[in-house]
Amino acid sequence: MGKIYLRNIFLNGQLSDIFISNGVIRSIMPAGGEFKEVGADVEVVDCEGKTAIPGFVNMHTHAAMSLMRGVGEDIAFHEWLDRIWHIEEKIDEEYVYYGTKVACLEMIKTGTTTFNDHYWHMPMARKAALEMGLRPVLAYVICDRNTPEESERQKVQCLEMYEEAQNWPEKSMFAIAIHAIYSVSEPMMLWAVDFARERGLKIHIHLSETEKEIEDCKALHGGMSPVEYLDSLGVLGPDVIAAHTLWLSPKDIEILGKRGVTCVHNVNSNLKLSSGYKFLYNELKEAGANICLGTDGCASSNNLDMLETMKTSAMIQKAWRNDPTAMHMEDVLAMATENAGKGLGLNIGKLEEGALADILIIDTDNYSFLSPGSFLANLLYSAHSDCVDSVICQGRFVMRNRVVPGEKEILKEARNILKKLEL
Amino acid sequence: MGKIYLRNIFLNGQLSDIFISNGVIRSIMPAGGEFKEVGADVEVVDCEGKTAIPGFVNMHTHAAMSLMRGVGEDIAFHEWLDRIWHIEEKIDEEYVYYGTKVACLEMIKTGTTTFNDHYWHMPMARKAALEMGLRPVLAYVICDRNTPEESERQKVQCLEMYEEAQNWPEKSMFAIAIHAIYSVSEPMMLWAVDFARERGLKIHIHLSETEKEIEDCKALHGGMSPVEYLDSLGVLGPDVIAAHTLWLSPKDIEILGKRGVTCVHNVNSNLKLSSGYKFLYNELKEAGANICLGTDGCASSNNLDMLETMKTSAMIQKAWRNDPTAMHMEDVLAMATENAGKGLGLNIGKLEEGALADILIIDTDNYSFLSPGSFLANLLYSAHSDCVDSVICQGRFVMRNRVVPGEKEILKEARNILKKLEL
Repeated sequence: MGKIYLRNIFLNGQLSDIFISNGVIRSIMPAGGEFKEVGADVEVVDCEGKTAIPGFVNMHTHAAMSLMRGVGEDIAFHEWLDRIWHIEEKIDEEYVYYGTKVACLEMIKTGTTTFNDHYWHMPMARKAALEMGLRPVLAYVICDRNTPEESERQKVQCLEMYEEAQNWPEKSMFAIAIHAIYSVSEPMMLWAVDFARERGLKIHIHLSETEKEIEDCKALHGGMSPVEYLDSLGVLGPDVIAAHTLWLSPKDIEILGKRGVTCVHNVNSNLKLSSGYKFLYNELKEAGANICLGTDGCASSNNLDMLETMKTSAMIQKAWRNDPTAMHMEDVLAMATENAGKGLGLNIGKLEEGALADILIIDTDNYSFLSPGSFLANLLYSAHSDCVDSVICQGRFVMRNRVVPGEKEILKEARNILKKLEL
Repeated sequence: MGKIYLRNIFLNGQLSDIFISNGVIRSIMPAGGEFKEVGADVEVVDCEGKTAIPGFVNMHTHAAMSLMRGVGEDIAFHEWLDRIWHIEEKIDEEYVYYGTKVACLEMIKTGTTTFNDHYWHMPMARKAALEMGLRPVLAYVICDRNTPEESERQKVQCLEMYEEAQNWPEKSMFAIAIHAIYSVSEPMMLWAVDFARERGLKIHIHLSETEKEIEDCKALHGGMSPVEYLDSLGVLGPDVIAAHTLWLSPKDIEILGKRGVTCVHNVNSNLKLSSGYKFLYNELKEAGANICLGTDGCASSNNLDMLETMKTSAMIQKAWRNDPTAMHMEDVLAMATENAGKGLGLNIGKLEEGALADILIIDTDNYSFLSPGSFLANLLYSAHSDCVDSVICQGRFVMRNRVVPGEKEILKEARNILKKLEL
């Protein structure tokens, strides 16, 4: 990994120089100072008044579903799910590989540098993500559908994959996904939690996504909500990343706060599938939960654009709370960056000395940023992700001037896969 | 105006050739046929499998406010309004000229070819729009704030401007704006309606935008809602374009339907200012109203992107109605195109022989369109407006391969204006 010296770049409103080596931000200085380390092994990039922000972190997605955009539009949830399952019966390792490649292509172009993935064929997803230069958090997905044979198979496979992961070099992270309380048996859930905690792995779970999930859980578990049920089993803690957490009682919120759970809001998926829209941001924040943002998979939302997710999250809060001051801009950016670093236990999401060098170089020389408004206001509310000019992930450029190496080839290969599988 | 021959372009799923002359679509043929009119005066453009759709119509905006993005974020409505007024005290003709230039630049880049404008200094807005090659509908804004002197001044100025507009060549349209029932006196409103109807002009009004507007109207006008009040005055008809129509009773909906009013939904503005989010799309459609989409001005929404507006409109309907089948894709496209043509009485919004040639050339060779989903699903839910490769307005290219002539110069001049006015 080389050394990069970003010159004349705005950082928190100050024209700065940023020096990166071995994937880490080594120093941040006022622009124009003398810099001693410049040598033949340092790439100097003049950023000409562009602005640096941390790479976005997509805290809940199913990356390979990028090849399932638009397969079920304007239809009811069950019909939608049938279509997804029909496709998932056909998919294989190659599909996951190219699906993840396409997902990474989109994530790079829209400014995401780390993604928390929840899908099958993890080794292929990992191969794709690392080839593209991104940082994947890859979960082994536990989903036994209450069949003991499947539980046993998954236990064996999970251990195998974990052992294989011991040989992974840096820049990818192994996690455990528990699909959801309705799709994983209680003994299997407990096994998975023990497995994760013994090894210090994060636990990624779908939680309280739909009203039906709440009702079914209460009927099955003596009136307990999904949050109460999980808490009664000792599942919840600061190592848990819970996707959705949309239907919550005051007691649920208190529990999620007390346990320091990371709650991931997936606004576009929730809107489009009519899961609900009253995400209890203020209440969860007040209770002490760590709140992040995700896009969910492309079959539901239908893209991986974190900037769109950020804007929509804030707009919906303002609307349903009837309060234009709800969810401040600084909070929105934090949810997409530093809160995610905290949730994953990684030194990402902040541009400061010692942090991993995940940097977006934003081009503000366009109409979106032409106003007396602040950079952040224009970024969140006016601009689109095409303002992301260049992307650095762990000290390496993965996009320069909106060019991602190999783009056309990736699209071509993905089209071939879709054709081959008759999708 | 020249002749253009678009070859090998998808139109409604068929690979087609489109011949345009004098601003009109003359013929649409299956691709690859022999074409006799090709001569030195015809520009042949091979579109290589790109897709043609009608240019979008932004049915409610305040274009020059493009220089006010982000001036009031995350603050309460009254504080926001104070900031806008503070800026509006300073603005002049030059501001409106460059503000509209910047707005047109954005509209072109995001696929809007016609916009229904509602702002001051109309002649400067017109100059800017025509220089950029777009089709503006320009309203003389009636807003007397119940002062008789102002009424008289506006009557004189309105007539002067209308007379000047008789010399306007084609591609811009004169309309009358009545700001709102709370800012225009009843006699002035009636004068404006008569003025418009005698001359066959469209009437553009803010209507039932906030709950407060409803309450205040009921208190002032014997319990009548704004819609009932306007109907009692004979204001409502198929020549009325009503922006927002967000707070409606069943009786209001019946009236708007019966009168054939064009209702313009401005979802992003409504969300961001916490005006409300339960736009009664199904009910208005059922009643027979003509429903279109708008972005509102950049001070509230904060951009002019119709594709974003289309996606958000559909998502919000699905969410608050708890029905993923709400607002079908075809309806969303119609609201942004052919319904607007109907509302304005212009032959736009459809790609068919005889229609004005307002055409977007969409590039589908990217990840957003890589899936088994339909073109429309991918356009609305996956893509962003940067998929708009080229734009033709009334038979003339205003953008080719995402390049708008003079872009950097426009940005530079607009920055100078902001500096000069100390904004």
